[in-house]
Amino acid sequence: MKKKIAVVLSGCGVYDGSEIHEATLTLYAIDRNGAEYQIFAPDIEQHDVVNHLTGKNMNETRNVLVEAARIARGNILALNTFDAKNYDAIIFPGGLGAAKNLCTYALNGINCTVNTEVADAIKSMAKLKKPIGALCISPVIIAKVLANVELTIGNDANTANDVSQMGATHKNTVNGEVAVDIKNRIVTNPCYMLNASIAQIGEGADNVVKSILKLIDNYY
Amino acid sequence: MKKKIAVVLSGCGVYDGSEIHEATLTLYAIDRNGAEYQIFAPDIEQHDVVNHLTGKNMNETRNVLVEAARIARGNILALNTFDAKNYDAIIFPGGLGAAKNLCTYALNGINCTVNTEVADAIKSMAKLKKPIGALCISPVIIAKVLANVELTIGNDANTANDVSQMGATHKNTVNGEVAVDIKNRIVTNPCYMLNASIAQIGEGADNVVKSILKLIDNYY
Repeated sequence: MKKKIAVVLSGCGVYDGSEIHEATLTLYAIDRNGAEYQIFAPDIEQHDVVNHLTGKNMNETRNVLVEAARIARGNILALNTFDAKNYDAIIFPGGLGAAKNLCTYALNGINCTVNTEVADAIKSMAKLKKPIGALCISPVIIAKVLANVELTIGNDANTANDVSQMGATHKNTVNGEVAVDIKNRIVTNPCYMLNASIAQIGEGADNVVKSILKLIDNYY
Repeated sequence: MKKKIAVVLSGCGVYDGSEIHEATLTLYAIDRNGAEYQIFAPDIEQHDVVNHLTGKNMNETRNVLVEAARIARGNILALNTFDAKNYDAIIFPGGLGAAKNLCTYALNGINCTVNTEVADAIKSMAKLKKPIGALCISPVIIAKVLANVELTIGNDANTANDVSQMGATHKNTVNGEVAVDIKNRIVTNPCYMLNASIAQIGEGADNVVKSILKLIDNYY
């Protein structure tokens, strides 16, 4: 039986949704390492729509689930159907959508709120002691929901300080390096929170998936 | 000096733009194999906008360059600035955008027209004997523009027949396998034209890039 990993997306594009390289290379790493994935996203409006050519806001509304379906090739489920008992692990790729659609960290910093479905998914996996992975800026969601865990967002001092204020312990990391909180079963990697090439994103995603598979097997 | 490869996108999403896994894994393969990429897309309206959750058309207009910028993280140039003398090779990932935005094959079959900037890019690279790569459905564009070349779109009989009617020679291939036309310096791979996993897409993209790098080095 293949291990089943849920992947939660936040749209499609680094500035208003999921970072596409991180999302794709997470799916690639899951498949390459012999596991299988099911993609989820909340069925909500995006916080905003950003023109990725100019960086400016567009006068449009788009839906997180509908746009995330682009990365999923249509094979995606609404996050309110997620049931922790059906999955061995859950992973949150990064992108600003994680900090604007899944929670409000990009707007409210340490006083952010987390989307209820996202918070429920994280809490229900943690309760069952199932591994949780997060890339790039997504670890702030884990910090906000679970507080007392160890994780990384790379080496940005301000974000690291915010994570600490939320109750988590921050560990500085370099490209490709993962922070593994064995006790709480949290695996994080900075990805594009650092200046990184796409090959380094692939390395980071692969290390996250490999560490999660080891946690599932109680290898540590 | 790193080899420079131009990658031409057609939007962002398999049903109305570039297939995201093929595009991302092409960039990943280029970086992993020690070359560098510059992404391009034509600055034109998409043929249509498809809801990737339902498969239905949306009453919206989107721009190919602006949406492709999502995959490029904003680092993209308009295709009308492409100059063949600045690149060692060019690659076209697939997705229905290749058959609706870069050419009209999805609408007009063998009587399709090809976007002028796309046709010019292909002709100018062919004239300089620089390698051209195409994934998934994109080889139909190469067949329409260059006619007398050998390529693959996998094993779909109807599409293979269309390619032949356009003047090209079709070679059946399986997942990950590339068709290399050494004389004309064309490298093609079926990707999602076959029933494939994302790991197989990665293998196909990697084989295309490796074959292109060999052609640049006159390895064959």
